[in-house]
Amino acid sequence: MSCPFHTPASRRNFLIGAGGIAGALAGGAGAQAKPHHPPLTKTASLDDGGRLPFYGAHQNGITTPIQAHTYFAAFDVTTDQRRDLIALMQSWTDASAKLTQGLSLSPPDVDPGKAAADSGEVLGLPPSRLTLTFGLGPSLFAKDGVDRFGLGPRRPQALVDMPRFVGDQLVPARTGGDLSVQACSDDPQVNFHAIRQLMRLADGVSKVRWVQAGFVPGYDPNVTPRNLMGFKDGTMNPSPTDAGMMEACVWSGDEGGAWMKGGTYAVVRPIRIALEHWDQMTLGFQEQTVGRRKVSGAPLSATTSGAESEFIPLDLEVADKDGNPILPENAHARLAHPANNEGAQILRRGYSYDNGVSFVAERWPPWRQGMELDAGLLFVCYQRDPRTGFIKIFDKMSKFDMMNQFVTHVGGGLFACPAGVRPGGYLAQALLEA
Amino acid sequence: MSCPFHTPASRRNFLIGAGGIAGALAGGAGAQAKPHHPPLTKTASLDDGGRLPFYGAHQNGITTPIQAHTYFAAFDVTTDQRRDLIALMQSWTDASAKLTQGLSLSPPDVDPGKAAADSGEVLGLPPSRLTLTFGLGPSLFAKDGVDRFGLGPRRPQALVDMPRFVGDQLVPARTGGDLSVQACSDDPQVNFHAIRQLMRLADGVSKVRWVQAGFVPGYDPNVTPRNLMGFKDGTMNPSPTDAGMMEACVWSGDEGGAWMKGGTYAVVRPIRIALEHWDQMTLGFQEQTVGRRKVSGAPLSATTSGAESEFIPLDLEVADKDGNPILPENAHARLAHPANNEGAQILRRGYSYDNGVSFVAERWPPWRQGMELDAGLLFVCYQRDPRTGFIKIFDKMSKFDMMNQFVTHVGGGLFACPAGVRPGGYLAQALLEA
Repeated sequence: MSCPFHTPASRRNFLIGAGGIAGALAGGAGAQAKPHHPPLTKTASLDDGGRLPFYGAHQNGITTPIQAHTYFAAFDVTTDQRRDLIALMQSWTDASAKLTQGLSLSPPDVDPGKAAADSGEVLGLPPSRLTLTFGLGPSLFAKDGVDRFGLGPRRPQALVDMPRFVGDQLVPARTGGDLSVQACSDDPQVNFHAIRQLMRLADGVSKVRWVQAGFVPGYDPNVTPRNLMGFKDGTMNPSPTDAGMMEACVWSGDEGGAWMKGGTYAVVRPIRIALEHWDQMTLGFQEQTVGRRKVSGAPLSATTSGAESEFIPLDLEVADKDGNPILPENAHARLAHPANNEGAQILRRGYSYDNGVSFVAERWPPWRQGMELDAGLLFVCYQRDPRTGFIKIFDKMSKFDMMNQFVTHVGGGLFACPAGVRPGGYLAQALLEA
Repeated sequence: MSCPFHTPASRRNFLIGAGGIAGALAGGAGAQAKPHHPPLTKTASLDDGGRLPFYGAHQNGITTPIQAHTYFAAFDVTTDQRRDLIALMQSWTDASAKLTQGLSLSPPDVDPGKAAADSGEVLGLPPSRLTLTFGLGPSLFAKDGVDRFGLGPRRPQALVDMPRFVGDQLVPARTGGDLSVQACSDDPQVNFHAIRQLMRLADGVSKVRWVQAGFVPGYDPNVTPRNLMGFKDGTMNPSPTDAGMMEACVWSGDEGGAWMKGGTYAVVRPIRIALEHWDQMTLGFQEQTVGRRKVSGAPLSATTSGAESEFIPLDLEVADKDGNPILPENAHARLAHPANNEGAQILRRGYSYDNGVSFVAERWPPWRQGMELDAGLLFVCYQRDPRTGFIKIFDKMSKFDMMNQFVTHVGGGLFACPAGVRPGGYLAQALLEA
């Protein structure tokens, strides 16, 4: 498997396609890449009633064109009985099949003497392209050295314990989880409702550990959206419609066991961005940090010749008259270049997040203390193997990326997303019944 | 001034129109009310490039058809110089006039040697019906007994210090503020961007104190949306297109001084809802609490006869065969009835909010402790005089409403929103230059 490279967690931008299967995708370094597919942005308005199927060979919400809003939730399993876990997966499967189709979990007016099965805040609301995507964390297979459910022997090698990266400041209350659910739709209330119902169905078996909502701006689907740093983000993410690419770099084959065949691995990282600090930087320094122009998105290595297309590949060799590289050695885009990463491919599907403001003691001049924006990037990526995907790429980036002075990884997790569910089956059935 | 009554903070639903000016609006109690106007929901999709004017006789964002997303921010003023405050208002005015039109505060590529004036995350994005609505808190006129800016003599009587209501659990970090800004648009990134620029422009003069984002679900504009309790919300809010009603009950006349003529008063209250607790209640109890049917929205007093329209007025007299009222004495809708409130009118313009999960020690059986949804209602209402508006209505509700066992007011503030700005002028100019 050889895949084009792209950047890791701290930005969703700056993917540089190259080599291998990527030939058809983005062209090698130096070739003139073209916008070969619309970016992963929403294709429907808030008012569309889009119903996406829950059942299928793969879980939905991975290669699905990105919806406007997400709600990610990680759960701790509190039971030690596998049968409870099976019952939960059956329950979540049934609920997901209904929720994605805009169906109430139960008509709330059936029996006034009982609690309504569905909280009802989406009654009459379109399903808004809701997808629900489930994952299993490493701790489901081994927690504090204990194999709680007898699943240890079927843990895929790719489902590693995440290494600690340079600069990680992971808050336990926002890190890990035995189970994960990613709700995505074009309506925040639809996502909220879905997660709320799943939380309730988990009662007594599993409880929520952390959540994070996010959004993408409403750019035209043919325009690369901008993230909160103000730069274009997603210029050269691989096309989810390229089935060959997805097979090679996103979907698991036989290597993870039957229950993971057609599944994938999700890396989720909430990354706080020091926006007040970033905003104080000169435009030139921002561009040096990123390696691209802010307005056009063109790589700095191209703009010496006046070219301003975001789709021009990076040129790592171009230098000024004194021999200094136009693209700084530690520029985000340079470090993410395929020539630096031995071939890795991840499908990024992140969102911006905004958690309001919180108290910060600045670690930069003028060392102010006060309320600052608690906002940034809910980085989400999918890959066939995180060891040759996110971990490979981010190991270097975490050490050298100039952007690190503006971004802090504050939590996250790795989750094995099982293959899709066929009607009559349930999530992770092939694992839990093996 | 005589206005129809409606409910206060804990729900946006259950408005019952009656009497006075309301005659044309909703009909007296017992009359058959009809949907006389579309509810305050969004009228444009995320992709519309809607530009709403910033300048005008009134500030926008008050009677504007509600946008899909809000971002509310309260600021503390740190200067003690009125001239700094004037400069801030001039700066915010100029910025608002640009931001609402989708204009960058400055092309970010002008001078690479300087910090970009605009952070740029909305470059190429439509303005998405952005409105920015500003307010002044009581503490701007008197803080700890000090009239910092010599504005005390021009403080309107209606800009009272908010009384403490029964059940208030106001967190200081989410309460008060010398200044307020309400950003509303159909795109969360547009709101975030606007508040971020205003925060930056305030640097050295004012700093953010608390913020709260919110959303409304994407119901068809002709359908009353549901809040997170699952009930319809906004059935009989007064029509912002009824100019006579707005003049009488929303816009300030001469009574607040020239700078407030055409302005209004905003009450903002983030209200956490114990959703996990609410979800455990039987459907019948939920409906008794609210006083309305969950699915149809019809008042319980009507449904004994099988009528299921949300627009049927409440009947406070109807009783069962034993003489017990069909509508419980402490039902939310009964307490909000005009017959109980001496005439008051507020224009509600609230949003649901979702702050993820936080640790809760439940105060109800089975007394669990753990992570629960930190979500609820960002209650926002506008009125000509809060003493005869929100305060009048909520004083009783806070004591007797059955719903209080599920809702907690956790912060908020009262803000005087000056009249609109004419081109060439600036926010609150008539106050600050008087």
